[in-house]
Amino acid sequence: MFKLYYAPGTCALASHIALEEAGATYTTERIDFKSNQQNSAGYLAVNPKGRVPALVTDRGILTETPAMLAFIAQSFPQARLAPLGDAFAFAQAQAFNSYLCSTVHVAHAHKMRGGRWATEESSFADMKRKVPQTFGASFAMIERDMLKGPWVMGEQYTICDPYLFTLAGWLEGNSVDLATLPKVSDHRKRMSDRPAVQEVLAAERG
Amino acid sequence: MFKLYYAPGTCALASHIALEEAGATYTTERIDFKSNQQNSAGYLAVNPKGRVPALVTDRGILTETPAMLAFIAQSFPQARLAPLGDAFAFAQAQAFNSYLCSTVHVAHAHKMRGGRWATEESSFADMKRKVPQTFGASFAMIERDMLKGPWVMGEQYTICDPYLFTLAGWLEGNSVDLATLPKVSDHRKRMSDRPAVQEVLAAERG
Repeated sequence: MFKLYYAPGTCALASHIALEEAGATYTTERIDFKSNQQNSAGYLAVNPKGRVPALVTDRGILTETPAMLAFIAQSFPQARLAPLGDAFAFAQAQAFNSYLCSTVHVAHAHKMRGGRWATEESSFADMKRKVPQTFGASFAMIERDMLKGPWVMGEQYTICDPYLFTLAGWLEGNSVDLATLPKVSDHRKRMSDRPAVQEVLAAERG
Repeated sequence: MFKLYYAPGTCALASHIALEEAGATYTTERIDFKSNQQNSAGYLAVNPKGRVPALVTDRGILTETPAMLAFIAQSFPQARLAPLGDAFAFAQAQAFNSYLCSTVHVAHAHKMRGGRWATEESSFADMKRKVPQTFGASFAMIERDMLKGPWVMGEQYTICDPYLFTLAGWLEGNSVDLATLPKVSDHRKRMSDRPAVQEVLAAERG
């Protein structure tokens, strides 16, 4: 039994979809970013970083999307969400997810979270202006070098897919032209057709 | 047989130490950042991201430090560099490494690599000024909440340790007061005493 802390529109969606695809038994708790609940004393006791997602397990609390995704895949091997028996293929999946978290998500964060790395309003505006370029460049690399198709790792659906789908959902908001990303666009459509994805999106909207 | 592309002073040190601790057979190739060799056509064919580290294996090339570290641990299970049989403990190790790559390393990168996220000189200067605070805050959280001691995960030395050691080597350069980080300082000393670490540091200097 797991409990996922999430907020709509955040990268927590990736773990939410993975839990659903794995057939896990879990509950969710929504954190209200508008009232800054992620920095409330109650939530900081769950995750001192003041971020979502966080996953409560009977062994303790896990954070960080790539670690949570690999944990879900390893905890539900019958769901075949990662190439668990092949260290090289598993590393390829992990490298993809690591790129999403340390480069792609970080590029996006410079749009609204400039205060993490700078102090002046002029710097925030400068960072914000560059996001379409940086976020677009990272997706151009995904399109060209990483997304094998039909799924990220090829024929097998893995924990890379809900994570890519989550960050690809930010493309329009970051003014990236989807016409330049046919494979990513096809992947988004393919993901949107999955029942687990539809259920999770409805739950996060609800 | 592996080949590690690295540059001195970069996060490639973590994988270099892990290969040595694992007893792996490997060669290294140094990439010269001063001449921007990481963006040469030759190196971009190895790693289109233009970054180090990259690990050449007989199955293909791996990038992204957290993925490479887990791969090294899984490829050399007898070295016991990760709790491979325990999905939750493995996820804790991965969450630590993910925090280092997506938050701690990213904070550091705003000192010299502001051009990744902004355009104006004034923004670069603003970012640079904030690094002691952001890098220091992330290490304060490591000191308080994450580093169990004597090693990151407790009694067992893991792939988290060379990665922490690598980023902790940037503390002085980022003007963080080591006196506020007694556990991190003790960890650095403990790491410096390991023969594998001494060998790798000598090789990167040589």
